[in-house]
Amino acid sequence: MDIHCPLPLGNHETVQLAHGAGGRLSDELFSQVFLPLLQNNFLAQKDDQARLPAFTGQLAFTTDSYVVTPLFFPGGDIGSLSVHGTVNDLVVGGAIPRYLSAGFVLEEGFPIVELERVVRSMAGAARECGVEVVTGDTKVVGRGQCDGMFITTSGIGQVRAGVDVSSSNLRPGDRIIVSGTLGDHGIALLAARHGLSFAGPPLVSDSAPLHRLAAAVLDSCCGVHAMRDATRGGLSAVLNELASSSGVGIVLHENTVPVDDAVRGAAELLGIDPLEAANEGKMVVVVPAGDADRVLEAMQACPDGTGRHAALIGEVVNEHSGMVVMETGFGSRRIVEMPLGEQLPRIC
Amino acid sequence: MDIHCPLPLGNHETVQLAHGAGGRLSDELFSQVFLPLLQNNFLAQKDDQARLPAFTGQLAFTTDSYVVTPLFFPGGDIGSLSVHGTVNDLVVGGAIPRYLSAGFVLEEGFPIVELERVVRSMAGAARECGVEVVTGDTKVVGRGQCDGMFITTSGIGQVRAGVDVSSSNLRPGDRIIVSGTLGDHGIALLAARHGLSFAGPPLVSDSAPLHRLAAAVLDSCCGVHAMRDATRGGLSAVLNELASSSGVGIVLHENTVPVDDAVRGAAELLGIDPLEAANEGKMVVVVPAGDADRVLEAMQACPDGTGRHAALIGEVVNEHSGMVVMETGFGSRRIVEMPLGEQLPRIC
Repeated sequence: MDIHCPLPLGNHETVQLAHGAGGRLSDELFSQVFLPLLQNNFLAQKDDQARLPAFTGQLAFTTDSYVVTPLFFPGGDIGSLSVHGTVNDLVVGGAIPRYLSAGFVLEEGFPIVELERVVRSMAGAARECGVEVVTGDTKVVGRGQCDGMFITTSGIGQVRAGVDVSSSNLRPGDRIIVSGTLGDHGIALLAARHGLSFAGPPLVSDSAPLHRLAAAVLDSCCGVHAMRDATRGGLSAVLNELASSSGVGIVLHENTVPVDDAVRGAAELLGIDPLEAANEGKMVVVVPAGDADRVLEAMQACPDGTGRHAALIGEVVNEHSGMVVMETGFGSRRIVEMPLGEQLPRIC
Repeated sequence: MDIHCPLPLGNHETVQLAHGAGGRLSDELFSQVFLPLLQNNFLAQKDDQARLPAFTGQLAFTTDSYVVTPLFFPGGDIGSLSVHGTVNDLVVGGAIPRYLSAGFVLEEGFPIVELERVVRSMAGAARECGVEVVTGDTKVVGRGQCDGMFITTSGIGQVRAGVDVSSSNLRPGDRIIVSGTLGDHGIALLAARHGLSFAGPPLVSDSAPLHRLAAAVLDSCCGVHAMRDATRGGLSAVLNELASSSGVGIVLHENTVPVDDAVRGAAELLGIDPLEAANEGKMVVVVPAGDADRVLEAMQACPDGTGRHAALIGEVVNEHSGMVVMETGFGSRRIVEMPLGEQLPRIC
């Protein structure tokens, strides 16, 4: 899309308190930035709510606030991230994402041109995912009262008929598949934030939507037990939650867990475990043993490449209920603990 | 509800960065504060999305970010406000509110006991409105990176069959009804923030849910043209938006517009127009002339009292399209302009 905001907005090149106050300047910001970039018939109604066509079947509903810093990072920005993250929370529930809302909290003085860049990125990500941002809100707080911009996106999806995935569905014997290399987002952000550079290609976030990958999984297997995206807390947090919710144990095989070499190197240098670092385009899938090969192949063949490095990394066991155990390359075992917290704040 | 969080949470009496990081402390905050206070079966699933029963008919979907300061104000707090505001955005679309999501952005160091107080207030408001907070998210940012707490609530409602209210539905001859006294929220907040006190009863916000009042309106008249809640920008902003969206003029009769005496006095002292000040429990209803008396009576009789001071304040005209004109008590006319912005920031 090549629509440009006729800058400066009104007479303002930066966000003013009145842009969030419901009057004429709010209306200008909506009409000159949000509506042209996110254009759709629901938003164009300018009502306090979007009224959407009836759905058949279950609804999925999710929300996430995004406070990532920096706002623009290698491989993405807060705009596309706020779409990918919320879309991914819908698709791992077995839903087809349909509609998003977006609530912006902006700091007074934030450059309009950067806001436009974020909204344009959000619009592009939404188009790629086949969703529309149908309703929104903007508040402005004074200088020093927020750090640039926070975005909260909520999403509504339509749960695919016959799909019943849940964190509490794991059964002993199930296989654990991960869709690709782990820790890319967290390590890339940490490196960017501290201005670290390493030999080889630059570290970039894996921020990506997983709607096609989830469809590939569900199309290949009608008995998927669980899907989760491994965001904050990384693979370690997700597997611990799955083990705890289902009352089962999980065993991982260290040499099968995919970690990019550059990410591993940077993580070692930074003292971070890549399995605890955030991902923004990776999912964990749990399926009955007999379906594992078929699902793995379907993921690896997904045309958008999001499952290119998918790997079978472990299985569900009857022993050590609620606990995740890693079998190392040397034949020893160690416990993969629930992280206390992400090693760095404002990762998403 | 008399559930108390076993304080201090973990060993923390204040919010830590790790409480927003997706690991063990996030889980503690969820399990010890959010889940017990907002308890429902959807939230208890602890999945990344709530999966909700199928709906019949159109969906209404809305979102609002709340950045009000102070967090606790006369007549309400950010917790109940974040429910009332989002519920009201659904009901003025002709919808029955069903489900809410809540995204919290918390500042490191925020007292857990105050967070608990906010979430308890949110839970009480949700119960009163017959909605459940079915999914949520918490992010924590560093000290000085947000001002205490911001909340973004999104809502899903079920549009009542046969209802078609919209800002663009106004027709010449229609009557304008307002549900009660104007400017209470904005003036009460300004007074509280500046420590002003006046003779007589204290000024309090009108923060209230309007689901029963909207039902009373729609039950009494099957041809309601528009409903809007008059939040930021007050009555002036809403009427200007209605006139502009519908391409009609609006005439108000000043002596019929309800403003509380204490609010009027404080507003004069503060140099604020009460018609431009925010309301958080007032709606504007536009109906065909023949239905006006019946709707007005139904509003005044609404058992929760939210329409007690409802008044017929004006009509839609063919002249001065897009413009709102006030006939004063002295027989003169003045233009009611779209406010440039709310006279004070962070009102909601």
